[in-house]
Amino acid sequence: MGIEIERKFLVRSDGWRDGVTSSAALQQGYLSSNAKATVRVRTKDDAHGILTLKGVAEGLSRSEFEYVIPIEEARELLEMARPHVIQKRRFLVPYAGFVWEVDVFEGAHSGLVMAEVELEAPDQPVPLPDWVGAEVSHDDRYANASLSRTPGVPACEEDVLAPSDLS
Amino acid sequence: MGIEIERKFLVRSDGWRDGVTSSAALQQGYLSSNAKATVRVRTKDDAHGILTLKGVAEGLSRSEFEYVIPIEEARELLEMARPHVIQKRRFLVPYAGFVWEVDVFEGAHSGLVMAEVELEAPDQPVPLPDWVGAEVSHDDRYANASLSRTPGVPACEEDVLAPSDLS
Repeated sequence: MGIEIERKFLVRSDGWRDGVTSSAALQQGYLSSNAKATVRVRTKDDAHGILTLKGVAEGLSRSEFEYVIPIEEARELLEMARPHVIQKRRFLVPYAGFVWEVDVFEGAHSGLVMAEVELEAPDQPVPLPDWVGAEVSHDDRYANASLSRTPGVPACEEDVLAPSDLS
Repeated sequence: MGIEIERKFLVRSDGWRDGVTSSAALQQGYLSSNAKATVRVRTKDDAHGILTLKGVAEGLSRSEFEYVIPIEEARELLEMARPHVIQKRRFLVPYAGFVWEVDVFEGAHSGLVMAEVELEAPDQPVPLPDWVGAEVSHDDRYANASLSRTPGVPACEEDVLAPSDLS
């Protein structure tokens, strides 16, 4: 098991596009999301299959179990997960020693752009790029499993308290 | 993906014990059981870990995806699944060209003994050993995922219609 510790933000501008080093098309289906675990199947560029089990989040942290599976089986599991499937393109954007993942959602969530960064400890300081907007780490509506159940974009950026609004 | 086709019976006597060729201690935890899939983690002799996703049953058939995982991770997933865990010893009993699996439940389901046989087609004829009792293939209460939610033995043998009762 790994522990996933991550912070998640809305994206307020296209500034990140200049720093992209690679990208991949992701499809993610949710077979379950309950009080014990979230069970996700992902295909990457329709060529790689990954099955992931995540425990319940405690603050920014979550246990995570990840298994590579044959792409044909991943495609079949995606079908089983419908309609709870999301589609996005993930861009990798290095910034100040961290690699940010910028997710541009497609299909039912077109218009939503989020940025995630993985930490080694919940209190690790992270320099924020200027294209990063409001933090949504603790807003369940922005969890990908929640999005898979709800078409559309949860809230526009101005509906969410930006860090500067808290001063 | 495989397709699992199986029939399941209660066991009416100890006659099967003479035919046992091997046995293993199984612990099975259910991380989810919903309208799309059942997600099960199993440890075998506390030495092998297996993650299994099963689709919804259609008659005797079910799609099945099975992945070997590290035993340490299987143990952690079992903990995540609590209290939805069952414990049993599985005995293999060859009979007339089929290998029957006889499950002797322990802990909360002590007293329950069931026998399963895997088929290659739903209509494949299976010679039944005389220690086999009522068929429960279509009785959801006897699904292991259901048992994991319900301590105790669902019904004693006489509460269930035996095939001979239908004549």
